[in-house]
Amino acid sequence: MEKIRVAVLGATGLVGQRFVQLLYNHPWFELEVLTASEQRVGLKYSEAVHWMWSQDPPEEVSEIRVSRTSYESVKDVDIVFSALPSSIAASVEVELAKRGKIIVSNTSSFRMDSDVPLINPEVNYEHLKLIEVQREKRGWEGFIVKNPNCTTAILTLTLKPLLDEYGVSSVRVSTMQALSGAGYRGVYSMDIIDNIIPYIKEEEEKVHRETKKILGVLEDKRVEYSGIKVSASCHRVPVLEGHLESVFVELNKRPESLNEVIRSFEEFKSKPQKLKLPTAPIHPVIVRREIDRPQPRFDRIVERGMSVVVGRVRWSETSDKEIKYLVLGSNTIRGAAGAAVLIAELLKVEGYLNL
Amino acid sequence: MEKIRVAVLGATGLVGQRFVQLLYNHPWFELEVLTASEQRVGLKYSEAVHWMWSQDPPEEVSEIRVSRTSYESVKDVDIVFSALPSSIAASVEVELAKRGKIIVSNTSSFRMDSDVPLINPEVNYEHLKLIEVQREKRGWEGFIVKNPNCTTAILTLTLKPLLDEYGVSSVRVSTMQALSGAGYRGVYSMDIIDNIIPYIKEEEEKVHRETKKILGVLEDKRVEYSGIKVSASCHRVPVLEGHLESVFVELNKRPESLNEVIRSFEEFKSKPQKLKLPTAPIHPVIVRREIDRPQPRFDRIVERGMSVVVGRVRWSETSDKEIKYLVLGSNTIRGAAGAAVLIAELLKVEGYLNL
Amino acid sequence: MEKIRVAVLGATGLVGQRFVQLLYNHPWFELEVLTASEQRVGLKYSEAVHWMWSQDPPEEVSEIRVSRTSYESVKDVDIVFSALPSSIAASVEVELAKRGKIIVSNTSSFRMDSDVPLINPEVNYEHLKLIEVQREKRGWEGFIVKNPNCTTAILTLTLKPLLDEYGVSSVRVSTMQALSGAGYRGVYSMDIIDNIIPYIKEEEEKVHRETKKILGVLEDKRVEYSGIKVSASCHRVPVLEGHLESVFVELNKRPESLNEVIRSFEEFKSKPQKLKLPTAPIHPVIVRREIDRPQPRFDRIVERGMSVVVGRVRWSETSDKEIKYLVLGSNTIRGAAGAAVLIAELLKVEGYLNL
Amino acid sequence: MEKIRVAVLGATGLVGQRFVQLLYNHPWFELEVLTASEQRVGLKYSEAVHWMWSQDPPEEVSEIRVSRTSYESVKDVDIVFSALPSSIAASVEVELAKRGKIIVSNTSSFRMDSDVPLINPEVNYEHLKLIEVQREKRGWEGFIVKNPNCTTAILTLTLKPLLDEYGVSSVRVSTMQALSGAGYRGVYSMDIIDNIIPYIKEEEEKVHRETKKILGVLEDKRVEYSGIKVSASCHRVPVLEGHLESVFVELNKRPESLNEVIRSFEEFKSKPQKLKLPTAPIHPVIVRREIDRPQPRFDRIVERGMSVVVGRVRWSETSDKEIKYLVLGSNTIRGAAGAAVLIAELLKVEGYLNL
Repeated sequence: MEKIRVAVLGATGLVGQRFVQLLYNHPWFELEVLTASEQRVGLKYSEAVHWMWSQDPPEEVSEIRVSRTSYESVKDVDIVFSALPSSIAASVEVELAKRGKIIVSNTSSFRMDSDVPLINPEVNYEHLKLIEVQREKRGWEGFIVKNPNCTTAILTLTLKPLLDEYGVSSVRVSTMQALSGAGYRGVYSMDIIDNIIPYIKEEEEKVHRETKKILGVLEDKRVEYSGIKVSASCHRVPVLEGHLESVFVELNKRPESLNEVIRSFEEFKSKPQKLKLPTAPIHPVIVRREIDRPQPRFDRIVERGMSVVVGRVRWSETSDKEIKYLVLGSNTIRGAAGAAVLIAELLKVEGYLNL
Repeated sequence: MEKIRVAVLGATGLVGQRFVQLLYNHPWFELEVLTASEQRVGLKYSEAVHWMWSQDPPEEVSEIRVSRTSYESVKDVDIVFSALPSSIAASVEVELAKRGKIIVSNTSSFRMDSDVPLINPEVNYEHLKLIEVQREKRGWEGFIVKNPNCTTAILTLTLKPLLDEYGVSSVRVSTMQALSGAGYRGVYSMDIIDNIIPYIKEEEEKVHRETKKILGVLEDKRVEYSGIKVSASCHRVPVLEGHLESVFVELNKRPESLNEVIRSFEEFKSKPQKLKLPTAPIHPVIVRREIDRPQPRFDRIVERGMSVVVGRVRWSETSDKEIKYLVLGSNTIRGAAGAAVLIAELLKVEGYLNL
Repeated sequence: MEKIRVAVLGATGLVGQRFVQLLYNHPWFELEVLTASEQRVGLKYSEAVHWMWSQDPPEEVSEIRVSRTSYESVKDVDIVFSALPSSIAASVEVELAKRGKIIVSNTSSFRMDSDVPLINPEVNYEHLKLIEVQREKRGWEGFIVKNPNCTTAILTLTLKPLLDEYGVSSVRVSTMQALSGAGYRGVYSMDIIDNIIPYIKEEEEKVHRETKKILGVLEDKRVEYSGIKVSASCHRVPVLEGHLESVFVELNKRPESLNEVIRSFEEFKSKPQKLKLPTAPIHPVIVRREIDRPQPRFDRIVERGMSVVVGRVRWSETSDKEIKYLVLGSNTIRGAAGAAVLIAELLKVEGYLNL
Repeated sequence: MEKIRVAVLGATGLVGQRFVQLLYNHPWFELEVLTASEQRVGLKYSEAVHWMWSQDPPEEVSEIRVSRTSYESVKDVDIVFSALPSSIAASVEVELAKRGKIIVSNTSSFRMDSDVPLINPEVNYEHLKLIEVQREKRGWEGFIVKNPNCTTAILTLTLKPLLDEYGVSSVRVSTMQALSGAGYRGVYSMDIIDNIIPYIKEEEEKVHRETKKILGVLEDKRVEYSGIKVSASCHRVPVLEGHLESVFVELNKRPESLNEVIRSFEEFKSKPQKLKLPTAPIHPVIVRREIDRPQPRFDRIVERGMSVVVGRVRWSETSDKEIKYLVLGSNTIRGAAGAAVLIAELLKVEGYLNL
């Protein structure tokens, strides 16, 4: 089988590096183009990147010359993954889509546009149908699909099985988010050693609105947002990778038991699992029984970072239909690059690459 | 004025050290006795302690010889502060109370006994009246008063003004608790660098039940527990000192505005402030307006560690009567030794030292 | 080929866990026995261990039942690896050696005994000949071989090529040692967050004397200690794994250039490499050219933790024959379990298993 | 007495904030002008600064409006303290000196100019005589005096008593330097959590050359550099404040005993002490006897940050005239702003303010 050629825009950032990790020996995709900011163009990837996820970048991509972020660079590839900084993402992505490119993007621009699919693959793969709406409405040859904000991606993966089994009326979530979520230069060490920053710009708003869209129902040519009430409080902690979320969920129906809830999490499988997509985790939601898990350092990279790990599922004292639990996920993989790659795999299988 | 002689049991632990800091040049109290475990008896305090709160312990107490934790050691003092480990606290405290001693204790034993006052001074000073019930019921010459669990002490200081102004129906709180809360040997570095431990033994239960008792109403000879529903999720983070709590509160009445809520916090004053007790903070609850405060490293020691600092007061999207905010307090001072010293000051002014 | 049966004593500690990682799918060795302290005996390994090196211990060993640390437990194995705490190591190891067992041990007892080989495989494999002296002198059927202290193991791997090329007259080394070197319970978080502890018990003495023995010359039936002067200053830093050492070396002969020195490091190969032992790194000493490497988080696990990484090789201004450099190594692998496994592989190839 | 009016250039940086702390209630100096970069001009200091050294900046200076970094801003002050970034320091300082201003500067430009005094007050106050050389040579009305690089300031304070007592032939120093030394934005958290960066740009060179100048002898109109050989290896560690240095010193004469060395440190006093300058520490060098001190978190702020703390004084095994020890100092106070303020106090007492 001939491989599908792919590019990563913004390949030297933390999420860009995750794309490289996930794509460099992908069975379907061939990583051909890596772009970065102007001053890095022409360098070998290994020289251009401040690699953060192991000693060195994968040898296979070290020699790739970094390209300019432009249509010219990607004109021969089939899928463009975007990890661009939001300041430039919007204009670049639109231009590429107009000129026929398929973009799977991690940046927040357009996520809430009614004709842009915002996809957490196991949760709302069917929203991909918005692609047709988008192309029709905008008259683009290509199209844009978005993966969710990291915190939202991790959260909704656990809300979906609860929604299916019991219905969900409200969610309160307090996060303990990793430094990598802010990007390499995002948090100064003087600010975070022996400290917590109880604020992340626009994060709570993203959790609120993206959750409602992702859990919404596709009706005709639009998504009817979920009526679930969501309230988030987001905090940065001195942890390198892995967002930990403390979740209180009011259900519509009281579960028989906590074991039943745990089973709902553990048995949750969806289209990516059924299709055995290469990047799909076998278990999207893993439940640890220990009293003190999940912990970021130990549980952040499970099934190559594509599973989230739940722990401490218990009743919440505030209502007899309310449960609380912890969920942890790799913010840069499950919450970013990994979700995007999984979307691209869905696009292929569902025939969206040859519209 | 002759000073009131006081002792600290368990004076070498982290909370014991806070007692020493608060008492060594106290205007009313004279720190005369420091006790510790057997192998330290007879040493100078400066030799016995692994001092954690500055370069060295205060010079004034460095030369005090450490005593055995026994009645003999404290028989000449007027107030005994207890920072004993819970394994031995119960039996020691009972013995001393039987033999006429007044004990203000930070350990959790007896906190929920119906005749034991569990006091967060600004919140429920009136519960001190249980002392008479206790002495009558138990036939003791002395008595025991407890300060709350650290997380609860910090939380209830913010709930009280809300309760008074709006009524509170439910509270969900996710904590990010400091290492000092577990004691000097409580958390191994291998467990917490680049990590979070999302579990603290018995902490959530303490928050649930102690909050209801503290916010309860004294009726005749007992406390009618508050009907507020409380649900906590407690987590240990790599921060040395200062518990940060993310709080969602459902009120009975919708406030006019968030500014009104802030004003309720800021204007909250209680008996310790009116009596101008030496250890009372001028403002028990301080509100920071910055978008990213409170932060543990900067806000944990305000008004000598006796104030809690609130920030990010905002509406919660889950209900139109619900607000959310962050609160930070020194777990070892406001949440432990400081609350106890403030209780002792109340005891003096209220005449409980000469029953 | 039938596999050689092996046991790990003290298999639940941090070094014990590294033994498990290195041995569980070893081509020559079959991990059959894991021992731990009394209260863990009979538990499955996965229940007995607080696993630190990834999410979970390898599945293959999770089901092994933990044995008592005794002769009975290991009587059927061929090689016993010891990661026992030093308090009990000496007596256990002697008993086993007397009763015919071959012990490769990480604990410090006996390391300086004249008839005990202290082996850093690439540096002084020929000292294994002391085994015969030991058996003869002590009348034991089995024998004991020791791997070096972690800091010394890492250091001597870089000193050996310098010694061979230029001769070494003196070494001054300042260390920045990882928390794992102190064991799981070795450093309390209250002591090390935002801090350094500039003292590690007996560490400097070990570096001094072990370096001289390891770099010494086997003469007849004893090791003539090296005359190199060694002075160490050892410090604990808030890093989980990987000892970083700042080394100043006075050479006997001035190198032509720093590139020549770097080449000496890079070309250093020894018997384990020639024999292609399974655990031998291809390059025992790797040199990074970047100005700011090696760094613990990125360079600690290279070639499965068996290589050390050198950086910043430069002239030292104190003498025209002096150089300085940084070296980093995995203290629990190269500096402990990995060295021991490599020794065992040498023992096999050299015929010591069938004396 | 009328107070001497002073300005701080670059007052919002970490060192600028230290200047503010040291000057805001100084007995001789009146802090009148605070300058910062363009976008902050006109703001109140409390709005312009991201205050790092406590909850809030001192109230007394919070209301001062931030000025532009220009001659106009400082034309009415008597002393200008400079904590400017090195990129702009040189031109600003020269302009001000030309126009008659007295500048005491922390930036590295000009430090090695032969007519610029580089002063660590207790070590080489007599080098202030270069001021006359400078003014004569350059024809300036004002003049520039420099305090040393932080690492050098801390180091030389311990070398001076050794030099006086025993003579020093060579110094090897390995540092563990705090994050604050790199400035607020100097080290990203992603780079330093669970890590060490074994390189600090130009730091080793500064230590080499500045040490020789500071320990040099003023002869006629120039400083004869010390012949001491100095070799440094500089490393950044995850510590907020306080540089820890591991020092090996070859002396010209063997001390009688280590106690004698300790006495040399402890008895070291110099002109600032004799003159009882307000910012002078009583003991410039404090020696701790504990086996595990100095430690940054506990020993970094001693005598208001103006003393350095020595520990673990011991013989070095490399030579019978060599000793080794640890020294810790506040890099932003003793190693920067504090040294500068002490210089200014010397200038006043020595009559340099009215040349």
